[in-house]
Amino acid sequence: MSRKATSGHAATSLFNRKHLKQVVRKKPGGVPGTPVHTGAKRVEDIQMIVHDFDEDFYEAIPITKIEKSEPYLTSKSKTWIQVNGLHDVDKLKSVWEYFSLHPLVQEDIVSTTQRPKTELYPDHMYMVLRLITDKQTADGPVDLHTEQISIVLGTNYVLSFQETDEPVFAPILKRLEMSTTRLRRYGTDYLAYALIDAVVDHYFNALDHIGESIEQTEDLIISGDTDRQIQRIHSLRHDLVFFRKSVWSLRDALNSLIRDDVPLISPEVKLFIRDVYDHASQAIDSIETNREMVSGLYEMYMSTLSNRMNEVMKVLTMIATIFIPLTFIAGIYGMNFNTDMSPYNMPELNWQYGYPFSIALMAAVTLGLIYFFRRKKWL
Amino acid sequence: MSRKATSGHAATSLFNRKHLKQVVRKKPGGVPGTPVHTGAKRVEDIQMIVHDFDEDFYEAIPITKIEKSEPYLTSKSKTWIQVNGLHDVDKLKSVWEYFSLHPLVQEDIVSTTQRPKTELYPDHMYMVLRLITDKQTADGPVDLHTEQISIVLGTNYVLSFQETDEPVFAPILKRLEMSTTRLRRYGTDYLAYALIDAVVDHYFNALDHIGESIEQTEDLIISGDTDRQIQRIHSLRHDLVFFRKSVWSLRDALNSLIRDDVPLISPEVKLFIRDVYDHASQAIDSIETNREMVSGLYEMYMSTLSNRMNEVMKVLTMIATIFIPLTFIAGIYGMNFNTDMSPYNMPELNWQYGYPFSIALMAAVTLGLIYFFRRKKWL
Amino acid sequence: MSRKATSGHAATSLFNRKHLKQVVRKKPGGVPGTPVHTGAKRVEDIQMIVHDFDEDFYEAIPITKIEKSEPYLTSKSKTWIQVNGLHDVDKLKSVWEYFSLHPLVQEDIVSTTQRPKTELYPDHMYMVLRLITDKQTADGPVDLHTEQISIVLGTNYVLSFQETDEPVFAPILKRLEMSTTRLRRYGTDYLAYALIDAVVDHYFNALDHIGESIEQTEDLIISGDTDRQIQRIHSLRHDLVFFRKSVWSLRDALNSLIRDDVPLISPEVKLFIRDVYDHASQAIDSIETNREMVSGLYEMYMSTLSNRMNEVMKVLTMIATIFIPLTFIAGIYGMNFNTDMSPYNMPELNWQYGYPFSIALMAAVTLGLIYFFRRKKWL
Amino acid sequence: MSRKATSGHAATSLFNRKHLKQVVRKKPGGVPGTPVHTGAKRVEDIQMIVHDFDEDFYEAIPITKIEKSEPYLTSKSKTWIQVNGLHDVDKLKSVWEYFSLHPLVQEDIVSTTQRPKTELYPDHMYMVLRLITDKQTADGPVDLHTEQISIVLGTNYVLSFQETDEPVFAPILKRLEMSTTRLRRYGTDYLAYALIDAVVDHYFNALDHIGESIEQTEDLIISGDTDRQIQRIHSLRHDLVFFRKSVWSLRDALNSLIRDDVPLISPEVKLFIRDVYDHASQAIDSIETNREMVSGLYEMYMSTLSNRMNEVMKVLTMIATIFIPLTFIAGIYGMNFNTDMSPYNMPELNWQYGYPFSIALMAAVTLGLIYFFRRKKWL
Amino acid sequence: MSRKATSGHAATSLFNRKHLKQVVRKKPGGVPGTPVHTGAKRVEDIQMIVHDFDEDFYEAIPITKIEKSEPYLTSKSKTWIQVNGLHDVDKLKSVWEYFSLHPLVQEDIVSTTQRPKTELYPDHMYMVLRLITDKQTADGPVDLHTEQISIVLGTNYVLSFQETDEPVFAPILKRLEMSTTRLRRYGTDYLAYALIDAVVDHYFNALDHIGESIEQTEDLIISGDTDRQIQRIHSLRHDLVFFRKSVWSLRDALNSLIRDDVPLISPEVKLFIRDVYDHASQAIDSIETNREMVSGLYEMYMSTLSNRMNEVMKVLTMIATIFIPLTFIAGIYGMNFNTDMSPYNMPELNWQYGYPFSIALMAAVTLGLIYFFRRKKWL
Repeated sequence: MSRKATSGHAATSLFNRKHLKQVVRKKPGGVPGTPVHTGAKRVEDIQMIVHDFDEDFYEAIPITKIEKSEPYLTSKSKTWIQVNGLHDVDKLKSVWEYFSLHPLVQEDIVSTTQRPKTELYPDHMYMVLRLITDKQTADGPVDLHTEQISIVLGTNYVLSFQETDEPVFAPILKRLEMSTTRLRRYGTDYLAYALIDAVVDHYFNALDHIGESIEQTEDLIISGDTDRQIQRIHSLRHDLVFFRKSVWSLRDALNSLIRDDVPLISPEVKLFIRDVYDHASQAIDSIETNREMVSGLYEMYMSTLSNRMNEVMKVLTMIATIFIPLTFIAGIYGMNFNTDMSPYNMPELNWQYGYPFSIALMAAVTLGLIYFFRRKKWL
Repeated sequence: MSRKATSGHAATSLFNRKHLKQVVRKKPGGVPGTPVHTGAKRVEDIQMIVHDFDEDFYEAIPITKIEKSEPYLTSKSKTWIQVNGLHDVDKLKSVWEYFSLHPLVQEDIVSTTQRPKTELYPDHMYMVLRLITDKQTADGPVDLHTEQISIVLGTNYVLSFQETDEPVFAPILKRLEMSTTRLRRYGTDYLAYALIDAVVDHYFNALDHIGESIEQTEDLIISGDTDRQIQRIHSLRHDLVFFRKSVWSLRDALNSLIRDDVPLISPEVKLFIRDVYDHASQAIDSIETNREMVSGLYEMYMSTLSNRMNEVMKVLTMIATIFIPLTFIAGIYGMNFNTDMSPYNMPELNWQYGYPFSIALMAAVTLGLIYFFRRKKWL
Repeated sequence: MSRKATSGHAATSLFNRKHLKQVVRKKPGGVPGTPVHTGAKRVEDIQMIVHDFDEDFYEAIPITKIEKSEPYLTSKSKTWIQVNGLHDVDKLKSVWEYFSLHPLVQEDIVSTTQRPKTELYPDHMYMVLRLITDKQTADGPVDLHTEQISIVLGTNYVLSFQETDEPVFAPILKRLEMSTTRLRRYGTDYLAYALIDAVVDHYFNALDHIGESIEQTEDLIISGDTDRQIQRIHSLRHDLVFFRKSVWSLRDALNSLIRDDVPLISPEVKLFIRDVYDHASQAIDSIETNREMVSGLYEMYMSTLSNRMNEVMKVLTMIATIFIPLTFIAGIYGMNFNTDMSPYNMPELNWQYGYPFSIALMAAVTLGLIYFFRRKKWL
Repeated sequence: MSRKATSGHAATSLFNRKHLKQVVRKKPGGVPGTPVHTGAKRVEDIQMIVHDFDEDFYEAIPITKIEKSEPYLTSKSKTWIQVNGLHDVDKLKSVWEYFSLHPLVQEDIVSTTQRPKTELYPDHMYMVLRLITDKQTADGPVDLHTEQISIVLGTNYVLSFQETDEPVFAPILKRLEMSTTRLRRYGTDYLAYALIDAVVDHYFNALDHIGESIEQTEDLIISGDTDRQIQRIHSLRHDLVFFRKSVWSLRDALNSLIRDDVPLISPEVKLFIRDVYDHASQAIDSIETNREMVSGLYEMYMSTLSNRMNEVMKVLTMIATIFIPLTFIAGIYGMNFNTDMSPYNMPELNWQYGYPFSIALMAAVTLGLIYFFRRKKWL
Repeated sequence: MSRKATSGHAATSLFNRKHLKQVVRKKPGGVPGTPVHTGAKRVEDIQMIVHDFDEDFYEAIPITKIEKSEPYLTSKSKTWIQVNGLHDVDKLKSVWEYFSLHPLVQEDIVSTTQRPKTELYPDHMYMVLRLITDKQTADGPVDLHTEQISIVLGTNYVLSFQETDEPVFAPILKRLEMSTTRLRRYGTDYLAYALIDAVVDHYFNALDHIGESIEQTEDLIISGDTDRQIQRIHSLRHDLVFFRKSVWSLRDALNSLIRDDVPLISPEVKLFIRDVYDHASQAIDSIETNREMVSGLYEMYMSTLSNRMNEVMKVLTMIATIFIPLTFIAGIYGMNFNTDMSPYNMPELNWQYGYPFSIALMAAVTLGLIYFFRRKKWL
């Protein structure tokens, strides 16, 4: 499964692809519901932070053992436990068992190539999302960053699991600190919505980035730089297919939240979910538009190649068409027929103006051909 | 996000693209329902005009503060408050709060890249539309103009929000002045319908314009002018994708108005909404036809390139094929074999009719090749 | 909106396109339900003919004023009022008002770019259809003819409106004259069905005509005549898209007649409507097949161009590849090295068989290359 | 409507197309439900065979008049009347009227371009199918054979109508002769099922044949034989579109039999119908796969053409690139500058090793170019 | 139906295609529900193994006659009878009749080109699946292996039928040996689920393999090795179409298990089935992505060919364009005009610096052309 670094689209893709490859795969026929972490280790240690809040207070407490969250969960306040890092299944298992999550949910949380979906269980709701965003890389160019985010919504708690410790939810933390926000007033369902909304909002940054990349490629092709553009086109298409897959599944998942009777989500919050649904639709529209543009890029690329070929051929044809007859005339008068033997043998050679005559003949041919090319609009 | 002005389709697009770019984007994870104006400032000051009317009167009153509309709203007459310009969120906020619009509606009104949709709230209905029309530009060519239009329908009032002060609804104002029109007799739902109808009617002008542009491109390609046509094709496709997205969403929104139980819309007006729905369908048909034609343009373009290449190659081949053998013959008789050494060495050079013989040989070759080309139908 | 007569597909389209262009367009924001005739004037004067019939009699009475039809409509017999020509809106208005048709129906009847649809009103049903048929033109070739036909079905009357006085319904008139036909025995719903059926039957003639045109183009491309074929392909595609749009909408309209509860249509007649529905489906199948064939034509065209290019290049390559080395050999022995200065300088020139040797050398090269081409299967 | 025999795909199609052309077409506006035979006469005389059977006996009686079947129909046994040949509408009319078939059914039976469908009438069910199978032609190659088959299912009888006397149902006759088969035990609905099943089973033979044809074409293209392949591809596509249309409609028809409440078909037989439905789905899968393969063939064809062009051009380029410089060198030393006038005028001509030097120079150029081509991997 | 081994995609397909060809086909019109083994013999003798287990024990007993399983089936324990090999229909018939399977089920088990489906019968459920996995071949490269697997689920037993004795279910056997697994605790429905899950899990290995093959092809095309790549692309497309067909049908079958009321499957196990459904969806997503990539490969391939052609032509054009004028100049001074006859006849030949002048002229032309190519960015 190893692959040379120089290979095609991987080298030009906007995605940092090494985190998309599944590192481990569950053995066929293996026990279902067995959590096996299938991605790469992307954070040193698993971090757990308890965010406890209510209308009148907010507190963030880093914990090392899930049991430490007990007092917050049993109190009347709302509690969000944020878990960053998925590589240490044993540690995660303690969390899952504390909340008695279904074995299939456990498996999905750490299997990092899930398609977005919602699943309802008697006492909790599970949602898996794919975060896609742009990220300034250390060495310069902006890259697309992707990771899987799982959200578990219970009656008075929310669990969130993400692969890295990227501050994806930083703005939400800030809003939690402000006492007047809906986030503090509404229930945990609104918090879950806010997390989903943050993930969807990130899509637009990523899409802007892809859009720019398409325009750059377009400009390069038009300016005649066709080198490696086909690979860029190929990568863009690949990235968009990946993107589309993620957002489309997410929209379906959101739709099922709106339509189905989900007791954990209040009608007021459903209005907000409908709004995220609209944003996801907007993202899909944008992806589809971009896909059309990428198809157009290929056509543009091929026509640029064809045009260039035409130009090359026209130059060759003009040069050849002009000089081949001239060379022929020169060849004629380079023949060695013996002018002494007969007056019919190349009398031109002995004419007084033989040479000027031949030059004039050549000039006439050249002018005739140039006229011909003009008429054909090649010149 | 800055882009050179010389870039591909932007330079040839029918749309004035600078108003389509989102100038500001809500920060991911930001508070949902926070109105942030995402477009450009397209009018100096926000204008507010109250249109108060009933079967027996019609009055238009420009106001500067929303509170001034109080008397009109509390009277039994029907009231339409037209708001032009979206850049001053504070001023708009006073309007929204006066009518206690849902925060998500507030956000959508000023976020000018919404996809068309309808949303029902307990006491009002919100609809967002995209206006697309053709517009004579100051410096000559006709351009496509686009802006977002929001309509809020309450029991006895209609609010309309648009980005510019384009007189999109001028004909409606004229009809309001006439006492016999349905507009004066029917309720505010009919006014809302009339606004939607005006927006949809504008699509056909824009489509006529696109259609003409397609035909022009087609004519240019056929007449052999392939310069920059691929970019025109690319832009046309992009414009149509954008158009399609807008109309398709609008049709869905209209469909939900027809099917769902919307108490604010009376059955008589539903008949009219069904008619706009049909118009939107007609626009979609027309867009799809145009999209097919644009695909055809690309094929036509590629075949024109191929044809031209074929023609160039045929000229080259004919010239080369005729002259290369002739030059060879001339080359033969230009060899310097010593005719004195042996009678086998180029005796032709000393023939009496050597030169005429060689010319005749060349003529024979030429005629043979011309015959060959005729048979192949190249001449 | 004016267009040169030499433009692309219009010149090669099977449709007489001038009747498809909308001559007038309703102003955006104009009063909905205002009838404006949008097509060209295609008949001198509007003709109105009353066909009054029952099981035991049939009478056709041309009238000039709609009031003249009063006695027929009030009698127990069934009445069909056939109106040919749509340009005189005032005259039509008298008819519409006599039957108190809904303003939107009035608008649709004269707006001649409607998509086929059915609309149910409390006391009548409105259906708009697009007639497409082939028509022998005065100056020879068969052309496609299209016009909009509207049918209004009331309890004891049928109104039909068409743009021209083409005898589209002539066979129905003949059947009305025969006393034993279902047409005389059944109600007005069967007459409406018969009119629809006649329109659908005409599609197949038009499709036969398009099919023949496709086969002709195919034959021409195969026989190597690629001149203007791309425009023919483009036109065929356009015509089929137009056709498809019309029939697809019609089928939807028929489907709604079958499924919905339409009190004006009896169950026996519904069986017949189901049959027209099947015919429309057959027409759609045929259109789709033709569309696939047209796509195939383009591929065939491009491969013909490629093939021809290959052939041209092969000829060039063979000629050049054979003669260039020969010319080189001749060039060698045309060099002027001084054979007197040294025995190393071109001793061949003084050989007894130098010339035959050089000719033999050339012959050997030629044979070698011919062998090479044979092996490559170019000869 | 006549067409040259040499025309495109008709000449290479696997279908014997002359039986697919509609010979006669119902006049537009003609009486619906009027049976007009639209195909060719494909059998001498119409044959009618009564198959009377029950659990304990089976008898086949050829009859000439439909009245002769009276005793079998009135008895308690099950009766199948097989009618071969559709050209003699008068004779068929006697059959139809004997069973009082609906006029639309009568029309469909003889109109041989029907799309497969099922229609339910109060006392009988009508189904029309398209048989497609491969058939050994007299003069060698296997051909595709197609005809329309109609089945009418009543409570205790089955009528089958086919265009020719092909022994399509021969295996069913054999099974009828055996006393233990379900065919004898079950009702007429099972017989109708068996007829449908036989038709569907034939599809797979035809599909095998098309599959082989695709593989042959593929092999020919790969082996470089591109002559006429584009027409074969075109024909294959056409044949598959035709095939698809037939099977897709059939599957819909079968689906309606399964879903709808059809009193004439018992639940046990429905299980079997579901099985034919699965077979039809399998046929559709296979058709779609073949269609994808045919699309692939075109791509393969075009890339073969491109590849060949590349090869031709490479040969030309190499020959030209090597010899043009050599010829130039020879040309240099063929110049006639007077060496006597000045020591600067071509002193090489008088060098002792001038000629060897020039040959060496040429050899060096040749080797350099060969090295260049090697590096470019052209050799 | 025999085919040369050298034929197109078969030679490059990842599938071992000989097992996909149907060896025998049921005769059209043959008795439905007659089991005919349509595949190749892929195992020596049919093996039957009884797996009897319950929460507290597990036993595996190879048997030769189905009657031997009687004691296990009548006991309270759960029983899985695994049958490997399908070629001996007589032996299988004894099994089927022992369990009184419906004739259509019998037919489907041995007809090895079934599309995946579920069928419900009063006392058992039948499911047919297609296993696709990668398999190390004896002689090196990894191959795709496919076979049909049938599962019959009764109240206390599961039957599985597979074509070969591949240890597809080996991990399940291992899990059966462990006493704590759900497999031992839950009912036979969970075992059936486990078998399905194992089949679906195998898809991902196969997809990884196809994905790698795509990337390899991509790398080869980019590195310029276009030899035989079109056939690889063609095969990949074919393999993916085959794959898609299988997984898509499977997903439909699983969906019907989830939606429909299937008494044999308990609600707890339905949760697990929903999980396999999600996996199948993931596989479909992956297949679709791969299909897009393969389309991209073709485009990449064609553009590589075009690019290469462009490069070849550029070299030819440059060489020709530079040397043709030079050769012409040399030709001029190789003319034999008699300088003695007139001072106008090629006086250059007698100039002192004639030769250097001509060389300088040539150098100037060369430099001019090089400058021209630079400006065109060809060098």
